[in-house]
Amino acid sequence: MGRLRKSVGEIGEFRLIDRIRKILPVSRNKDLLVDIGDDTAVIRMDERRALLLTCDIQVEGRHFRLDRTTPYQVGRRAMAVNLSDIASMGGKPTYALVSLGLPADFPLKSCDRLFEGIRDELLPHRAYVIGGNLARTKEGLIVDVTLLGEADLSRVLTRGGARVGDRIFVTGHLGASGAGFQALKAFGKNVPGKFREMVNRHVLPVPRVDLGRRISRSGVASAMIDLSDGVAGDLFHVCTRSGVGAEIREDSLPLPEGIGAIARKSGTSVLELALHSGEDYELLFTVPPGVSARRIRSLPGDSGIPVTEIGRIVKREEGYCLVDSRGKKRPLTPAGWDHFRTPRG
Amino acid sequence: MGRLRKSVGEIGEFRLIDRIRKILPVSRNKDLLVDIGDDTAVIRMDERRALLLTCDIQVEGRHFRLDRTTPYQVGRRAMAVNLSDIASMGGKPTYALVSLGLPADFPLKSCDRLFEGIRDELLPHRAYVIGGNLARTKEGLIVDVTLLGEADLSRVLTRGGARVGDRIFVTGHLGASGAGFQALKAFGKNVPGKFREMVNRHVLPVPRVDLGRRISRSGVASAMIDLSDGVAGDLFHVCTRSGVGAEIREDSLPLPEGIGAIARKSGTSVLELALHSGEDYELLFTVPPGVSARRIRSLPGDSGIPVTEIGRIVKREEGYCLVDSRGKKRPLTPAGWDHFRTPRG
Repeated sequence: MGRLRKSVGEIGEFRLIDRIRKILPVSRNKDLLVDIGDDTAVIRMDERRALLLTCDIQVEGRHFRLDRTTPYQVGRRAMAVNLSDIASMGGKPTYALVSLGLPADFPLKSCDRLFEGIRDELLPHRAYVIGGNLARTKEGLIVDVTLLGEADLSRVLTRGGARVGDRIFVTGHLGASGAGFQALKAFGKNVPGKFREMVNRHVLPVPRVDLGRRISRSGVASAMIDLSDGVAGDLFHVCTRSGVGAEIREDSLPLPEGIGAIARKSGTSVLELALHSGEDYELLFTVPPGVSARRIRSLPGDSGIPVTEIGRIVKREEGYCLVDSRGKKRPLTPAGWDHFRTPRG
Repeated sequence: MGRLRKSVGEIGEFRLIDRIRKILPVSRNKDLLVDIGDDTAVIRMDERRALLLTCDIQVEGRHFRLDRTTPYQVGRRAMAVNLSDIASMGGKPTYALVSLGLPADFPLKSCDRLFEGIRDELLPHRAYVIGGNLARTKEGLIVDVTLLGEADLSRVLTRGGARVGDRIFVTGHLGASGAGFQALKAFGKNVPGKFREMVNRHVLPVPRVDLGRRISRSGVASAMIDLSDGVAGDLFHVCTRSGVGAEIREDSLPLPEGIGAIARKSGTSVLELALHSGEDYELLFTVPPGVSARRIRSLPGDSGIPVTEIGRIVKREEGYCLVDSRGKKRPLTPAGWDHFRTPRG
């Protein structure tokens, strides 16, 4: 097959994005602070405020299946993943636009439930749907959300601020969503109680909006990202943008209860789930060396969300590694969830 | 079939939107100036500037067919329809987000062409793509664009400002896109030269961005909308929002060359095409009685785009009518292109 006939499925999401970026001209507008390449764009509104902009498309059969999740959950999830992008910049969500592609036979009641999910996910943040669009599809539901947010101009956190010597922290537990997905696959609707929490994390991710704002406002962090592709993939984005390397300590990864049993049952490893399975929607942030342990401990407030140190930023030449309990290093592959190429079970 | 099982396809786009609006809470934020119900949301940025926000989803087989339009044209079109929404508020487009759903076998080169179309459509306006999203679909291309714009706060034009006695104007010609679509259907790729211009209007709508800004800045207009659903449908939106009625004079409608021949060939009428066929992406605006003919004539500048008076705003009780050459009135039905329900040939 000639090179000219290559299809998008053959090159994967990140190479495709690179290719598209080469076609599109770059704005020289000095108010555009963060452009394509981050999940969230940042535009200066005035001397004090920044406008944040993100979008995320969810496709039936690809990001969700209606025999495993309800329309209500699809609505909440579609909004939650966007809230997580705003959270990763330390922003406050404000307004959303919702584009919906629906097959003609989609039940009206399911459409109601979907928008109830969207409403319920936005309500605690006092954010509102202010526009959108409907279109009919031949087959399958598509939910595309654009979410706006606002942040203090001086406090916006991006992927590009990590420096050598910074410590790496994550919120919550790693691999919970991936393990929940495997539990759903293995048990269907009869998931045993001990795995329920992981299934919930998969079905309804909890974006760390308040914690993201606390981290941003505290001024302790140098860079931040949300974990959508797996920590190995997302930390790699931080390293690429910041021009640094990183080491993750294997025995420091915060793991959810029951992940070992799911790993065994599904024929994968705990480490694979924790590093690569994606969709946890926790936050990863880096902190310069001088910051006190007390300030870090105070970040979660009374939310009860754990904040765990998992490694450190090193020079780019030192690479991107996983360090085991005996101090042995091995290269960490950034490969995580490729929304474009990886087939979904 | 029970009422509970009703599907979205049975109730059509506008009733579905009404239903969704009842589920979603309304923001009380005083900076939100135009909410759902207009195609474009308006948010106050400061004392001087308004942020405009619009989105439009285009689905293969529904809004375009890849055997009739090229990927380049799909890209341009997807951006053009959004530019038209920003134009209808008198705004200047600034930044876009592009969400793309692609089947795995979509050719890489076609993806390149699509983004070249997006780029070329934005470039004259110095607007830029600053983010987006890719997802794989089982079948069919989906392009969802969110476009931002900016306008002078005091000059934003909405659908709600028309008053009794205002005159109604449109830019360009009516029914050109609908006639072009019929010509494509009838002749395929061998469309005779005399119909080419109408086909072009269908394939590549030309959003009236500069003219929209001139109209807004001139301060002559009381309300404005872009013509996406056909003038009968879109003027009805203005009437509903403004709480007024309207009369259109049949013999004043600006018609494109050759529309009569296409109407005959496709078994429809010129009036049907001009009033109801939609997708012209011209502007309709209303002007209070005192404004001089000279000020109206100066609006198009040197663009050469005709601006034609087609009727006047009347009291709501006087209804929504078409007036023929003998002065006889008959009710005008707002039904135009329903993106949700109407099947596409």
